[in-house]
Amino acid sequence: MTLSPLAPSHFPKLPKILGINLATAASGTRYQGRDDLLLITLGPNSSVAGVFTQSDTAAAPVCWSQTIAETGKATAIITNAGNANAFTGTLGQKAVQDMATGLAANLKCDANAIMIASTGVIGEPLDVTALAPYFSKLVDNQTASWQAAANAILTTDTFAKGAYATCVIEGKKVTLCGIAKGSGMIAPNMATMLGYIATDAALPASVLEHCLREANDESFNAITVDSDTSTNDSVFLMASGSAANRPITDPLDPLLDDFRTALGAVTRDLAIQIVRDGEGATKLITIDVAGAQSKKAARQIGLAIANSPLVKTAIAGEDANWGRIVMAIGKLGIGVSTNNISIDIGSHPVARAGMRIPDYDETPITTHMTGQMVDIGVSVGTGVGTARVWTCDLTHGYISINADYRS
Amino acid sequence: MTLSPLAPSHFPKLPKILGINLATAASGTRYQGRDDLLLITLGPNSSVAGVFTQSDTAAAPVCWSQTIAETGKATAIITNAGNANAFTGTLGQKAVQDMATGLAANLKCDANAIMIASTGVIGEPLDVTALAPYFSKLVDNQTASWQAAANAILTTDTFAKGAYATCVIEGKKVTLCGIAKGSGMIAPNMATMLGYIATDAALPASVLEHCLREANDESFNAITVDSDTSTNDSVFLMASGSAANRPITDPLDPLLDDFRTALGAVTRDLAIQIVRDGEGATKLITIDVAGAQSKKAARQIGLAIANSPLVKTAIAGEDANWGRIVMAIGKLGIGVSTNNISIDIGSHPVARAGMRIPDYDETPITTHMTGQMVDIGVSVGTGVGTARVWTCDLTHGYISINADYRS
Repeated sequence: MTLSPLAPSHFPKLPKILGINLATAASGTRYQGRDDLLLITLGPNSSVAGVFTQSDTAAAPVCWSQTIAETGKATAIITNAGNANAFTGTLGQKAVQDMATGLAANLKCDANAIMIASTGVIGEPLDVTALAPYFSKLVDNQTASWQAAANAILTTDTFAKGAYATCVIEGKKVTLCGIAKGSGMIAPNMATMLGYIATDAALPASVLEHCLREANDESFNAITVDSDTSTNDSVFLMASGSAANRPITDPLDPLLDDFRTALGAVTRDLAIQIVRDGEGATKLITIDVAGAQSKKAARQIGLAIANSPLVKTAIAGEDANWGRIVMAIGKLGIGVSTNNISIDIGSHPVARAGMRIPDYDETPITTHMTGQMVDIGVSVGTGVGTARVWTCDLTHGYISINADYRS
Repeated sequence: MTLSPLAPSHFPKLPKILGINLATAASGTRYQGRDDLLLITLGPNSSVAGVFTQSDTAAAPVCWSQTIAETGKATAIITNAGNANAFTGTLGQKAVQDMATGLAANLKCDANAIMIASTGVIGEPLDVTALAPYFSKLVDNQTASWQAAANAILTTDTFAKGAYATCVIEGKKVTLCGIAKGSGMIAPNMATMLGYIATDAALPASVLEHCLREANDESFNAITVDSDTSTNDSVFLMASGSAANRPITDPLDPLLDDFRTALGAVTRDLAIQIVRDGEGATKLITIDVAGAQSKKAARQIGLAIANSPLVKTAIAGEDANWGRIVMAIGKLGIGVSTNNISIDIGSHPVARAGMRIPDYDETPITTHMTGQMVDIGVSVGTGVGTARVWTCDLTHGYISINADYRS
């Protein structure tokens, strides 16, 4: 797979989070010459939260992990790449049970303390007997780096995705490290493909969950590559407590403002990296919507533009065919009035009050579109709702990746 | 533009409808060496009905024609190809007024008896002064064939689309002729791009409207190429009355059953031709959904599959990656239970009760997928709602057409 032209220059330096350990292994079941298993273990003082796909056809590991996430406690998260264990019926449920039981025996813990995430092809039974022999190796050597961990979970991704931030909770320095995978089938609905954020903060699971949902909504839920939502989307937030701050029990406590900002930065960074690695992507598109009747309406308008194949192909072709943006706004049918629509591209005004500006000059627009970053601003003038969403262009690369081999 | 590999072998022989005349002309404003103007005139005994895009950003000619359609009477429909006159604000309204006034002067009728349809690029002001000189030529020579008419309205289409049927109303033979255009920006919402169906039946506008809505719903509203809905979708049903049948005033009168069946056949034929001419299409995909909670839910499921870029690229690649069908069903989030899902491809069972069948053999599926027609059957086992939708695959051709030049 060719490296995305939008890839960051390097994987960021992510520090170890005391109380959270990583291990990777290569089962060789689907991919050769790379790791495809990731074990994350959490110390006894840890808490955990998760957000999961809202798909009706959520995979077996999602259903399993969701139940555990509700308890706020877990000993480990095991992830396999290459097989999603989705739409696998009773075989899939048994596979999840077998994975948890097998790993729990090695970790000497309860199987119900093992969360599971799987990513890869949908509909093929997952053969746990091919993975289980690696569990003891994973448990015995938990010294992997975040970069190795980020590499072990990839499928069609062309680069490993990591982000981190520091913040302060009542004078204690707190660190957050995150990794994620995702490239196609990206239109998360409450979560992205797979994401893992670890912090040394001491925070109860209820606080983690609130903060994770909030951060998610402005990051993984605000991106789309192809409008397709995965059966396996899962994002985990783990807190080891090793920063030894005083645990704060109200998620809206101003003492957590800095933490929430840092978490928002990490999730947004990871989300944008997923778009940068969108299958076939050559341009990162940022869409700002203003003047909508509500925040939800603004998000809908942004996603309608971001998911329009005609908008995405025009941008791929560096063609200032902005009439397609008008079409995308209109097709939602949520009661936007044409005469209130304004459009900017790359901060250059294109349309005001429902029509092209009188002295419209396409030259600066076309120049802007030749760059790797394309910014679209839309105002629909009916309210105060705003939203920002990110997407990428739709290119021959997307077709090649998805029509030419099975991912 | 290369002819679609799914094109019919020839344009059907469409008879003249007495009382309805056709004329075409080439304005040269956008296309060279082809007609881009179509005039349809309706005799004094005619009635007319229309269905129009539900887009919030419906074009100026749509708003104009909708008002006239409500009266059930029109003298003419003028269509221009190359400029949609959409998102053109007050300039667009003036353009519509100028077109109607100019043509009405030639036809010696009221401007409010002229319906207008436009198709082409969105957002560019339409220069009526470049079209008006051709109005007298159109009026003076109304001898064009249906094939010439179908050719004059095309934009990115690779072939002209026509269909016809005959039926009987109380012993009188009635003929229906239809033409349509559409290739990209196809996800009609109450209508397709542009469609014109003429009949010699004598029927009041209220009956026409009922029959047109009914036929539309199972044809133009059941197709999608790229999930993008046009600003200019319009379908017209014109009845000249020259068949001299006794006008029937109740659209549900059993005496109209044959007419409704014929109209359904014509609209379905045209709709499928639009999918066959879908931008870049190499396969015609028919999706049958059964067992949904309602007809509406079945349609939603069918369209979710039909609009999924991952399903469409897999079919382009002749890859039996049916897990993507599961994903598409799930992403709707309308309460389907995974364990009730069954999938067939080309009448071969693939999955039953939420998982792959035990003795699954991909060979016949892959063979089926190498053909030009791909049939997907899905049952979600929660009710009795059924729907059929049609789409095409998503190929490099779609990207080339939409990323490489402005249509």
